[in-house]
Amino acid sequence: MYDCIIIGMGAAGMSASIYAKRSNLKTLILEENMPGGILNKVSKIENYLGFKSISGSDLAYSMFEHINNENIEYKITKVLDIKDNKDYKTIYTTKGEFKTRGIIISIGRKLKKSGLLNEEKFLGKGISYCAICDAPLYRGKNVVVLGSSPSAVEEAIYLSDFASTTKIITNKEIEDKTLIEKLDSKNIEIINNRKVTNFIGNDTINGVELDNNEIISVDGVFIYYGYSSDTSFLKDLNITDEKGYIIVDNNMKTKHKYIYACGDIIKKELYQVSTAVSEGAVAGYNLSKELKEDNL
Amino acid sequence: MYDCIIIGMGAAGMSASIYAKRSNLKTLILEENMPGGILNKVSKIENYLGFKSISGSDLAYSMFEHINNENIEYKITKVLDIKDNKDYKTIYTTKGEFKTRGIIISIGRKLKKSGLLNEEKFLGKGISYCAICDAPLYRGKNVVVLGSSPSAVEEAIYLSDFASTTKIITNKEIEDKTLIEKLDSKNIEIINNRKVTNFIGNDTINGVELDNNEIISVDGVFIYYGYSSDTSFLKDLNITDEKGYIIVDNNMKTKHKYIYACGDIIKKELYQVSTAVSEGAVAGYNLSKELKEDNL
Repeated sequence: MYDCIIIGMGAAGMSASIYAKRSNLKTLILEENMPGGILNKVSKIENYLGFKSISGSDLAYSMFEHINNENIEYKITKVLDIKDNKDYKTIYTTKGEFKTRGIIISIGRKLKKSGLLNEEKFLGKGISYCAICDAPLYRGKNVVVLGSSPSAVEEAIYLSDFASTTKIITNKEIEDKTLIEKLDSKNIEIINNRKVTNFIGNDTINGVELDNNEIISVDGVFIYYGYSSDTSFLKDLNITDEKGYIIVDNNMKTKHKYIYACGDIIKKELYQVSTAVSEGAVAGYNLSKELKEDNL
Repeated sequence: MYDCIIIGMGAAGMSASIYAKRSNLKTLILEENMPGGILNKVSKIENYLGFKSISGSDLAYSMFEHINNENIEYKITKVLDIKDNKDYKTIYTTKGEFKTRGIIISIGRKLKKSGLLNEEKFLGKGISYCAICDAPLYRGKNVVVLGSSPSAVEEAIYLSDFASTTKIITNKEIEDKTLIEKLDSKNIEIINNRKVTNFIGNDTINGVELDNNEIISVDGVFIYYGYSSDTSFLKDLNITDEKGYIIVDNNMKTKHKYIYACGDIIKKELYQVSTAVSEGAVAGYNLSKELKEDNL
């Protein structure tokens, strides 16, 4: 029987594991792929305090070394289902069942990609998924934002304070008047009803091609097609909102006793490395506190 | 005119400055002493994800290098008063006045020391101020907790899961029945109405002397005499609770427009490096957002 099983080994899950383990909980992390989660898809991180400028995969590796230094146990396996038996929980995985008193869910989320050929090639070389992280690199340059959601519009507005020109390209039509007014007030050109069919460039991106064969010159492309998470194994717990995000209180606790969540899978305002790491600490600390208060 | 002046250059303030500066805000940090705040008093930090094990002052220095890398402006000066003029705020300091649209307060808090001769000498060599941080170092050892507050009791209970014996020494009498029961249930001996008069040891601490000349053998001493912060310059803003902590919402915003707070000076549950860094990010991001929404 474990005290704490953490599902997902990104920044949030690794931080939670340090707090759980150091609080004397018997702790195990289950991860489907590799340590670091979405960090491995980020070319450069410059806003996690203490690391001036580091690639996402290098930061993920530093974090992984940290949990190895604490001798935290982990297994690479896919979680299939969770059963809450009141006294303990059972986690069903492709490598068998695990029993635990407490669970911390930190599975993060995956970026929806454009699916275009050169997307991987230009990652960190003109293609980004995070304006808050990368906008300063595009000061005085020409950028386009791909997407039509309110988040895509917000990111375009954020970028317009840095970039020389900002355009937003959407395969639908942005109809919300408030959003259109916001974009107008920042001189952001809206290109409605167009699909991007190709990313063009040599070492770095320098253009996007549209489905009418028009080519737009760019220095940077910010892709906001949204995120997805496979939360099917959580359906019996009934803890997610309509978009699949887990609802937690300020202590990172779900509505179930001894079940917490943290990181990019929770409903919150700011999705950053530092917020994930903090939420992990809060989840690990509070699960430990809850178990100890009940003398478990 | 600045967009963002940050008061206090600990982990929270430095993280806030990175988010503010990278959001294109004209940013200045005001600090009374030195970068890092209370970090400089912590011998070893092992729970800020990515830094396996680092001295507090080395971590403070890494953070300081990070903000220098972002060319963030700072001044060493003491803040005397803040005036909220609606359109902008004026900060009065020992080096003159500064005008700004937004303020982030991150002055942290100072540990109340025992005032005994050897306290500094044994810092990190048997004396600690943080059970969550240092308890794993005292597995199977003998520890005493100094203090009588509910926090001191909580910390003793936390430590008792690691230590072989845990005692709590208080110069008053712990009278709260629930607290006494909790201590009893964990076999924690209460030594009431005693003052510690001396810390004893060579390289590391090995005993504390009481005011009746009794000597108690120890491997570790956890001091919980509480914290203090000089918030007198905030009194006109009326944003602190009865203990001097600043009340903020989930976006780190006080009740005043464009005034935020983060780090150890806010009222919260968990006072850790990671939580401070995250709150700094949230404060910097949200101040920037608020200013931009108002086109300031």
